[in-house]
Amino acid sequence: MFDKVTIIGLGLMGGSAAKALKKKRLARRVWAFARSQKSLKRYKKLRLVDAVTRDLDAAVRDAEIILLCAPPSAILYYLQALSRLNLDGALIMDMGSVKTDIMRCAQKLFAKKNNFVGAHPMSGSEKSGAGHADAGLYEGNACFLVPLKKNHFFKKALKFWRSLGSKPVVIGPFEHDRIVAAISHLPHLLAFSLVAFVPRTQARFAAGGYTSISRLALSDPELWADILTANKKHLVKTVREYARRLLGAASCIEHKRKEEVESLLKENSRTV
Amino acid sequence: MFDKVTIIGLGLMGGSAAKALKKKRLARRVWAFARSQKSLKRYKKLRLVDAVTRDLDAAVRDAEIILLCAPPSAILYYLQALSRLNLDGALIMDMGSVKTDIMRCAQKLFAKKNNFVGAHPMSGSEKSGAGHADAGLYEGNACFLVPLKKNHFFKKALKFWRSLGSKPVVIGPFEHDRIVAAISHLPHLLAFSLVAFVPRTQARFAAGGYTSISRLALSDPELWADILTANKKHLVKTVREYARRLLGAASCIEHKRKEEVESLLKENSRTV
Repeated sequence: MFDKVTIIGLGLMGGSAAKALKKKRLARRVWAFARSQKSLKRYKKLRLVDAVTRDLDAAVRDAEIILLCAPPSAILYYLQALSRLNLDGALIMDMGSVKTDIMRCAQKLFAKKNNFVGAHPMSGSEKSGAGHADAGLYEGNACFLVPLKKNHFFKKALKFWRSLGSKPVVIGPFEHDRIVAAISHLPHLLAFSLVAFVPRTQARFAAGGYTSISRLALSDPELWADILTANKKHLVKTVREYARRLLGAASCIEHKRKEEVESLLKENSRTV
Repeated sequence: MFDKVTIIGLGLMGGSAAKALKKKRLARRVWAFARSQKSLKRYKKLRLVDAVTRDLDAAVRDAEIILLCAPPSAILYYLQALSRLNLDGALIMDMGSVKTDIMRCAQKLFAKKNNFVGAHPMSGSEKSGAGHADAGLYEGNACFLVPLKKNHFFKKALKFWRSLGSKPVVIGPFEHDRIVAAISHLPHLLAFSLVAFVPRTQARFAAGGYTSISRLALSDPELWADILTANKKHLVKTVREYARRLLGAASCIEHKRKEEVESLLKENSRTV
């Protein structure tokens, strides 16, 4: 059992972690930090954690684990803030969707103890906010872990994510950002672009084909602008490569016989 | 109540119509035509219809409604075959995803009675085959109807689709093919292309973003090669316009500030 776990940013991801920690009795105390009076009130009402405070120092004092569950740019801010506090023995983890900048920053700030581990659970939803918190959100899904060092903090990170039911996958920041550009950021940009492209007067007739993609465009635009911008280097390259393949498929349909289109789709079809 | 309804092509779409007709007691008799001995056996085992025969003439004799539930190219073949039979008073409808060629063909073949109505229910699934037939498949969804003439056959078509719970939308073939290129064929091509693009070694880490799109690539490649090829004129134009927008979004992410990316996503985000 973990002792005190502090969650900074009680949204869907942080809220779900809190709910799982309480439900599975994995932590003795779960605290949350609230940036504003409004958030404080809302967090208290949700009753997902044992205590909420606007005092960052108090929030993280004696914490065994600190979870940064904020958009990528806010994580950078909190890393700076935490580095100025006395966090003796605390493991710090983020849940950001992009890792290069965060790891570079963490490497500088936590070089002495190497008590930071970048984490990115591959769980999510188009819904946002701790009101949709789900104790099973991490169950059965991969969780990328980017350690500074394979020390005892890293071992604790592994234990933490396994206890939430997720499957840790150890990876470097560059490789992480390259992969999530393809499996998460590209799909979301495809969805936002599809919704922009199809007029509402047509979309209202749509069946599963359109709606299973457009669902992703219900995701929070502010958060996703932050994520997509933070991973622009990998994402832009990925989008251009994908577009080339898509246009290639269109050319095949335009110029080739049905049998050749069928071979193309067969190669491309999902077998599971 | 309809008298005899004959289904040619007992797959997911035809099978679901048969199931609904029987369950809701909308037709006195539901027959199916089987192209091969193998299909005949399979159809009989499914017990979705009252009778199955390999004799097309017998299958459609005395039918009040004939439903062509085959891929677009096969529909053209069956239209020819039906035009040579004596179908006194039968309403013929197809369920094809592309309408221009089918309507052009039907206009020539059924000019005397105008007893053909093109239909395209906006219901479907990545699953195929009558084994997945669902009596509620058409419930609540739009169904495009393309009449040759607004005669009593057309009125019967309206009645038929309403009785299955779908909402008829009367449309011309050109407009139909243009719209479905955007709301159905493009999404499927995005999915096939995404699955082709993302290596399996990466896809296995994916969460909802990727999988809610890749699900569409489970669709039958043979059927979809037929559909995409049949609508190539509209589809290729649609794909190129969409790719331009997608690449525009990538450029915005590459060159602009986060606030501008956020504005772009906000415009593009789905509000419902």
